[in-house]
Parts: sequence; C-alpha cells; structure tokens
Amino acid sequence: MTNQNLTPLFSLGEFGLIERLTGNHTPVRPSTLKGVGDDAAMLDYGSNMVLVSTDLLIEGVHFDLTYYPLKHLGYKAVAVNLSDICAMNGTPEQITVSIALSSKFSLEAVEEIYKGIYHACQNYQVDLVGGDTTSSQIGLIISVTVLGSAQKNEVVYRNGAKENDLICVTGDLGAAYAGLLILEREKAVFKADPQMQPELEGMDYLLQRQLKPEPRYDMVKLLKEKEILPTAMIDVSDGVASDIRHIANQSNLGCVIYEDKLPIFQTTYDQLGLLKIDPTTAALNGGEDYELLFTINQNDYDKIKDHNDIHVIGYMTDPSEGYHLISKSGTKAELKAQGWDALKK
Amino acid sequence: MTNQNLTPLFSLGEFGLIERLTGNHTPVRPSTLKGVGDDAAMLDYGSNMVLVSTDLLIEGVHFDLTYYPLKHLGYKAVAVNLSDICAMNGTPEQITVSIALSSKFSLEAVEEIYKGIYHACQNYQVDLVGGDTTSSQIGLIISVTVLGSAQKNEVVYRNGAKENDLICVTGDLGAAYAGLLILEREKAVFKADPQMQPELEGMDYLLQRQLKPEPRYDMVKLLKEKEILPTAMIDVSDGVASDIRHIANQSNLGCVIYEDKLPIFQTTYDQLGLLKIDPTTAALNGGEDYELLFTINQNDYDKIKDHNDIHVIGYMTDPSEGYHLISKSGTKAELKAQGWDALKK
Repeated sequence: MTNQNLTPLFSLGEFGLIERLTGNHTPVRPSTLKGVGDDAAMLDYGSNMVLVSTDLLIEGVHFDLTYYPLKHLGYKAVAVNLSDICAMNGTPEQITVSIALSSKFSLEAVEEIYKGIYHACQNYQVDLVGGDTTSSQIGLIISVTVLGSAQKNEVVYRNGAKENDLICVTGDLGAAYAGLLILEREKAVFKADPQMQPELEGMDYLLQRQLKPEPRYDMVKLLKEKEILPTAMIDVSDGVASDIRHIANQSNLGCVIYEDKLPIFQTTYDQLGLLKIDPTTAALNGGEDYELLFTINQNDYDKIKDHNDIHVIGYMTDPSEGYHLISKSGTKAELKAQGWDALKK
Repeated sequence: MTNQNLTPLFSLGEFGLIERLTGNHTPVRPSTLKGVGDDAAMLDYGSNMVLVSTDLLIEGVHFDLTYYPLKHLGYKAVAVNLSDICAMNGTPEQITVSIALSSKFSLEAVEEIYKGIYHACQNYQVDLVGGDTTSSQIGLIISVTVLGSAQKNEVVYRNGAKENDLICVTGDLGAAYAGLLILEREKAVFKADPQMQPELEGMDYLLQRQLKPEPRYDMVKLLKEKEILPTAMIDVSDGVASDIRHIANQSNLGCVIYEDKLPIFQTTYDQLGLLKIDPTTAALNGGEDYELLFTINQNDYDKIKDHNDIHVIGYMTDPSEGYHLISKSGTKAELKAQGWDALKK
C-alpha cells in the first residue's frame, strides 16, 4: 500500500474519522432507535430499551503496563464502558470481553486482568456474558461491549439541552490526569535509576482516579430518586471542555463555563502545582474523570443545589454565543477543546 | 513479569482458557438467560430475546493483508458475527465495530474496510450502531459485536441434541480451507519471484469461500418456513469435527459421522488433491465454512430430505459411544478435533 495521493488518517482526528466512516449510514431496522453518535446506541427490543456501547483498549496506546496493575486494568476496561451506559441514564446489565494476548503473558497474568473485570462486575451487578480470546503478535488488547437497559422515556441523549439549562458535573475534575502525570514521572525516574523507589505517598486518591475509575451509576440512581431527568448527558472521558462541546454542538447551542465553579480537590491543585500544570487546564482537558456532565432545566436547581457531589459549572446559551470560559478574574475567553485524541497519540 | 513458576497460556488452549477464566462466573441479572458457552448470549429485555456475540480479529493472527482485500476483510468481520446469531436461530439486527489502525493505513484504506462492512450490513439488513476508532502500534485490529433477536421459544442452543437425532450440515465443506491454502501457496510463489502472476483461474468459488463467507441466514428462514426447530445448532467455524463435539459434549451425547455423507464440491476435491491434502480432513478440520451444523428429530427428516443444500451426515448416540467417523470403506475411527485454535497459531 503506497501513501501517494492518499489521506493520512491523522489528518481527520478521531471524531472526523468516525463522521467520515459512519455519517452516511442510515439504519434500516425498526429496532434501531439511535445508532452512532451518542454514548451508547439505543435499541427497541420490546418493553425495555437496549443500550449498547463498546471500547477498544490497546497496550501502548491506552495503557502502559510498566505502571498499570493488571487487575486495575481489567477493572477500568469495564468501568469506562459502564460509564457510557450511565451517561445515557441507563442501568448497565451485561458485558462481553474480548482479549488478545501475546506470548509474554502467563495464565496468572490473564487471571489478574479477569479478577479486575469480575470485581467491577460485582460492584455494579453486571454479568459477563461472552467474549473472544485470541493471541496477538504484540502486547495486550481488550475490547469490551456493554449492554444496558432503560425505559424509553428516561433515556438521556447528548442533543436535548435547551437554552439557559444549567450545566452540572458530578464529583471532581483533573485528578485522573494528575494521577497519570505522577505515574509518568515516576516511570521516568525509575528508567533513569532503577534503584529509586517511587514517591507515591499521599497520592492514593489521584492514582486511584487514574487507575481505577468508578462509573457514576450512583448518580443515575440519585437523579431518579430526585425526579430529575437531565435534558442532555455525557460522561467526562475526553475532558469537560471537549465533552460540553459535544452537548452544545449536538443540541445546537452555545455554552458558558465558569472557571471558579470547576470542582478541583486541594490535593489535585497541590500536585498539579508541583508538576507546573495549570489546574484549570487539567480540569477542562485532562480527561478520564468518568464523571457525569449533564444539563438540567433551571426549575430543577433546588433539587440539586445542596448536594455535595453535584456542581453547577455554567449554562447553555444561544448558539451564536459560541463556547466560552469565564475566568476567575472575569475575563471571557473561548472554551477550547484540547481533549485527548486517541488518533493523535 | 517473569515466567518462573507461571503457566504458559499456550498450555490450556483457547477453550481451556475460556473455561478457566469464565467457569466460575455466575450471572446475577434476571435478564441474563444464557451467558458464556454458546454461539451467543441470550438476554431477556422484554418481549423479544436479545442475542449477543463478539469477535476480535488481529492482523497477522486471523488475516494476512498481503492477500486479503480490505473490503473483503470488512465483509468477513461482519459475516462471521452474523453467523453466530444464525447459529442461535436468531435474526441479526445490529453491529458495533471497533477498529484500531497503525499509521501505515490511509483514510482510503479504512474506507475500503468500511465499504465491506456496509456491504454486509446491506446484504443482511443489519445496522451499524456504534464502535470505537483508535490507533494501534502495529497492524490492524477489528472487534465486532452483533446483536440479534429471537422469540424465546425459538432460540436453539448447543446443548439440546437428543440421542438418535440426525446431524445435518448446510452447504459444502472444506472449500474455505482450500481457498486459504491456495492463497498461501500464491503468496509463497510471489515472495520467491515477484514477477510471477498468481494462478487463480477457476478458483473463484474456493477463494470466495475463504475471503467472503456468507452467514446462512437464508437457512434460518428456511427452517422456520419448514417448521423445523433444530434441537441443537452451531456454526462451522473451527471445522465440523470440532463443532459437532461441542454439540455432543454440551448435550452429553456421542456422535457418528459418515465420511461419504460429507458435502464436498468437486472443485474442492480437485484442488485439495493438487495440494496433497486429504479432502475428508479438510472438510472435518479445515474450518471457516460458516455453514450451520444442527441436529433434528428423525420425525423432521421428510421435511429436509429433498433439499439440495441440507445434508444429513450422521446421528447422535449414547454418550458411552464417544465420537466416531465411519470411513467410506466402513472402518470406524475416533472423530478427532484438530480445529483451528487461535491460541496455537
């Protein structure tokens, strides 16, 4: 295959490529209610909707086994998929796991991965119902598909936000990215001098956010309890800046985010400071927080305003206003998406 | 990771590994009617059952791009998954496709793969509803998950065969394997002398069987029309010898296969003869035929006996009789499974 006159894949970016590859495909099945373009597809198989989402994780691209414990990797591979079902306001029910391994892996190593997979299954009451196991020429590949259920009228898409809706995010931001930077730093130190012991004390939370993220199914249940149906929802995988732009773009709106409303833990601030990384940039663009980012009607504000783990960080605007960040000093700047792009890594 | 005292993955084989990794997992969801262990999982999401199956294809392990046209590869990646739904007697409805690519691939190359994917979608009226697109450090990886539907009482498992049931297979056997051998031969010739043109005349059928297999959804519909509900069913991916043993083992029965009943086309015979490969071995162990192998009650024999594309090749026995092949000369020998094992390649 020569590259003469051909388009390099990198020139499109991940979203551009997906659009190019799937943009012209029109579903034909009556059971396909929603295909490509949200956190999960929605299928009508009877009284309950079926939600489906899938992820492909490649060693050296998505994870680095020099510092990634195999058990955590198995857990995370499941968790990030469950997060996609949560982002549709659904209940994760089943997963399939396909795994390809090179000969460097022993059975014991693979069983460690599966311990993590089953741990996540148990924590979220999800069944492993199938998969494929094969060899790879190099490294480890994990593909997870998740199925979830939801009542048709409670599924939340990315495209339902309305002007003046409040933008909310659960939990805190930037910690997973800080954890990643710390792991990368310690790896570099270890490479330079294998006698050095890693300095990870007091960083448990940041490391856990990177290595063992939790899908916010608790929030899906909480929203239901509080009788809040978000108008739009997505999980924070690429970073709030990129992810809110998906909601704004698909809802044909603009948005304003307030820097001083971004929920960032003190330990995240402190460690990012030592790493000379701007905490706001990490919170907006670090990604892999796997929190829920959603919009609600202002009438629902009273129901969430006293909840510690839900933060209003901005609001949706007329599309002509674009995407903006109001800084702590009150300056208005464009909200740029520098989200992690798997194809550019 | 050192391998001291650790178990090499290769020592278990693919099925042993799957059993080891999933054998202790008990589903907890009421909607999980059948998990690991058949061609697809069966999930109860309301009035219709949801069938799910998944496959992971790795360049250099499952396909060789030196002779595999990208469009055919996309088609086959979908077709083999649809075949799993057919093997449950279901209707394929949706697929997700995840794809990882190294930088050697251009956009045009990826679009070729998707042309094949959409061609299969169109032929079988299936929707692509999601996926993941990412980079790989080396080569091409395709992961396909398929969802299908079925009425609960029409799903056919591997474990329902009864003693004296007839063993049937659709289509013909061994051609896909013959096609593979021809492609490997021409690759070797080309490597030795790049000026040589491949000798592929008259081999269209064999090559097509290898490069562009078709799931037998037509047979699923035919069986329904004829009001035949197979007692057990599987698709022929590893080879009839291996696949009938799955049915026999899971139904706790033995089986007898007659060599002279194996449906092998003349062109398959001829080419395998030139390649010095025993046609019976190719038919039993070549694999990748993607035909349907199923058992029926003898009372249903009259309904299929005149159909050109359904062949009775043996019958199920008491488990104490084991697995046997009756040769053309009448000799009885053990039916050995030498099916393609992805982990041993």
